[in-house]
This record gives sequence, C-alpha cells and structure tokens, in this order.
Amino acid sequence: MEKTPLVRKLGAFVALSDPELSVLASLHRRRRTFVAGRDLVQQGQSDQAAYILASGWACSYKVLEDGQRQIVDFQVPGDFLGLRSVLFNVSDHSIEPVTDIEVTEVHVSDLLDAFAQTPRLATAVLWAASRDEAMVVEHLVNVGRRDAAERMAHFLLELGGRLVLVGLGSRDGYACPLTQYLLADALGLSAVHVNRVLRQLREAGLVTFRDGFVSFDDYDRLTEFAQFDSSYLDQSGPLLR
Amino acid sequence: MEKTPLVRKLGAFVALSDPELSVLASLHRRRRTFVAGRDLVQQGQSDQAAYILASGWACSYKVLEDGQRQIVDFQVPGDFLGLRSVLFNVSDHSIEPVTDIEVTEVHVSDLLDAFAQTPRLATAVLWAASRDEAMVVEHLVNVGRRDAAERMAHFLLELGGRLVLVGLGSRDGYACPLTQYLLADALGLSAVHVNRVLRQLREAGLVTFRDGFVSFDDYDRLTEFAQFDSSYLDQSGPLLR
Repeated sequence: MEKTPLVRKLGAFVALSDPELSVLASLHRRRRTFVAGRDLVQQGQSDQAAYILASGWACSYKVLEDGQRQIVDFQVPGDFLGLRSVLFNVSDHSIEPVTDIEVTEVHVSDLLDAFAQTPRLATAVLWAASRDEAMVVEHLVNVGRRDAAERMAHFLLELGGRLVLVGLGSRDGYACPLTQYLLADALGLSAVHVNRVLRQLREAGLVTFRDGFVSFDDYDRLTEFAQFDSSYLDQSGPLLR
Repeated sequence: MEKTPLVRKLGAFVALSDPELSVLASLHRRRRTFVAGRDLVQQGQSDQAAYILASGWACSYKVLEDGQRQIVDFQVPGDFLGLRSVLFNVSDHSIEPVTDIEVTEVHVSDLLDAFAQTPRLATAVLWAASRDEAMVVEHLVNVGRRDAAERMAHFLLELGGRLVLVGLGSRDGYACPLTQYLLADALGLSAVHVNRVLRQLREAGLVTFRDGFVSFDDYDRLTEFAQFDSSYLDQSGPLLR
C-alpha cells in the first residue's frame, strides 16, 4: 500500500494495522487540486469540508474586521486542513494554498464512518488535532514571550521537525515556499523586520533562508538559541502499539 | 441521570443518546480533588492523565527556560484538563488549579474503551478538542493583533459565553476568581496594565470586574468594541442529531 504523508505522520502515534490502513485509504477517495492564493475554506462558511494535504503548502488564518490578518499555522503534506472547524456550524478560519496543492476532501460523514469502523483511528485523529493545537500554543508563546529572533528560529525549527516526519526535510534543512510577507503575518512582525531577523540569524551562523531553502548552518546552536524543545511535536515514537 | 457540566457542554454539539450518556458517565468514576496553586500536571511529565473539571477553575500554561510564563487558557466546569497532551509521550504544558477543584481522572485506556463503545462520543471529544484549539487561536489573535483594551474585552466575553453554556453565567455577568496577575500572564500584559485597562473599560460603561464578579454593563457595545464573534465557540446548536 502506498505510504501517504498522513500515514507516515500518524505512524508516530500509532502502529496502524492493515484493516486500519484500509479505512484510512478510503478517506482518500475525493482527490482535488487548488491553485495558490485562492481560499479553500472561508471564515464564516457553513457546510465546510476538511482536507488532507497530499502535496504543497497551505496556511490557515483569521482576518479581523479592520483587515488585519493573523496566520495561525502553515500546513505541510500529511496535515489536515480545516479539521478544527469541520465539526462546527461555521468555519472559524480561512485556508489558503501557499503553493498549488493536491488534497483529498473529507466530509464529516466520512470521519464518522471511519471512527465507527476503527476507534483507534479516531484516537489517531484526536492525536493529530492535539498536535495541531500544541503548535498553535507554541505560536502563542512565540508572539507573547519570545523576541523576534528567537521566535523566527523556533518557527523554522518547528517546520523542520514536521517536515522530517513526512520525509521532506532533514537536519540540513528543507525546501520552503514561504515569502517574508507570510512569515511576517505568522510571527506578528513586519516584512522589513523579518528580513532583518533572517539576516541576523544568518550572520550568526545559525540558519540561512535563501532561494526557497532553509539551511540549518548549526542545528544544535540554533536549537539552544531558540530554547526549542520538540516534545510538543510528539515524534519520538508510537504510544499505541 | 445527573446532567454534568460536560454533558451540558457536549449537548451543544451532539444530542447524546442514553447509552452514550452511560458511557460518558462511566468516565466519571475516579473523583479527585486538588487544592488551588498545586500543579495537577507538569510540563515534561510522562504517564499523565486527563481530567474532566466538575467544579472550580484551572489554568494551563507553559514556562520558558528563563522563567517567563504564558497562560494558554483557563478551564471552567465541563472542560477537559490535559486532553491536548494525554495522547503524547510527555505533557507539553502544566495545569494548575486557580481555586480548589473537583475533577474526574481519565486515562487513555478509558478514552479508547469509550470510543470503541460509541464512535459518536469520539466525535464529540474531537469537537471539544477543536473548540479548545479555536480558543487558543483567538488568544493568539488577541496577543498578536488586538490592543490591550480590545484584548481584555474579547477575553471577558469569551469566558462569559463559555460559562453560559454550563449554566454558570448570563448576559449580566459571572463570578470570576481570576486575579490581575493571572489575567496579565494570559493576555501578555503587566498587572499594572491590566488594572489600567479594566478601569478604562469600566469608565467607558462597558464592563466592570470587581469583588470576584464580572458585570457586563453594556453587553452589545462591549461585543462591538471587542469585535467579538462567538461563532468559534460553536454554541448555536447541535450539528449531530
């Protein structure tokens, strides 16, 4: 069976059996593609679906009445899009593809069917949702308590850890399509400030983000600088055998 | 059957059947009490349990290496404590009772058993986790994009909405045990700043927080001032019948 990014990711939590893998594969029926920059889900929308990201990057965000935007998180292959509010009457956020993306569409009824067939999969999806929340918590700590350079370093390390899990990164670095504007909206900085902080981290020999690639120049020192403790990503091995 | 705060809360998402209510009641076997100020769960702890809060208030927080603290959220009756990381190898956060509290302790095996018996309950727990995440997202928007007065107003309205759902508040207000120090650690403000902002909101005739009670002096104007859209609390009625 093809090992999708989602299967790789859930494997960090639970050793899925063949029948469970079949149920998971059945969630991948409705394949769709979306082009960069056009919302898949809009804040306030009802009857919204969730999606599993197969390839490309997306971002989830909220817009205030005065037009300010806060990017909540970026999604990479293996992540759910819109899982948080698929069970809500209306979506509490918008989702925009950062690049062209391939997804599979998942309806609430698909989730209910899958959970009925294999409760362990329900637990795995709850784990994935918990991990998404743990990342938002770190973004709150970022914006609330870390200075701009630590914030950026923590954020680039988190993305690295997530991408390693789905085979798209290493301790050397990863391909990253994010612009400085997107980084600014995620980290609560201006684009000019993002540029300055990236230069500062590069000149300190810690990390270089250039030409669509994040290179960890000194992974250990960067980790120490950002006080990055990856345990909230819970990638150290499956709890459920 | 006794209608616990959790049953009241989940009722906003799903009309639970009698068998489902029995399974939920079976989660309430291990009753425990904790005194204010002593952590139930510590960041980095393994083999942690989750808890369902029956009475009292708690807070979840993260501490940085330099000792700074960010309160992620407060929990009120009907909320889970530690649900986010009960499926993780180690807890990513700490939980402290704000008042003396009564809880029931829930182990991962209890959750797995309950999900196996009724998949709809698994969906309801996923909904509760999604709602917790939606609140953390709003706290990120608070700290990232709202000024101090809007931030405080939004936060007090959110708590009000949550308490109404479990029968502990109304549009007039609610009993609130939070100190200015706790509000400061949640909102990324100093205690002095919290004091100033509360005075400002009171003098504007919007809301008064005094002697352990939050009084909405003008609920509609406060809602408009904070741009508070409660749809992320998803309390408008059950999606699943």
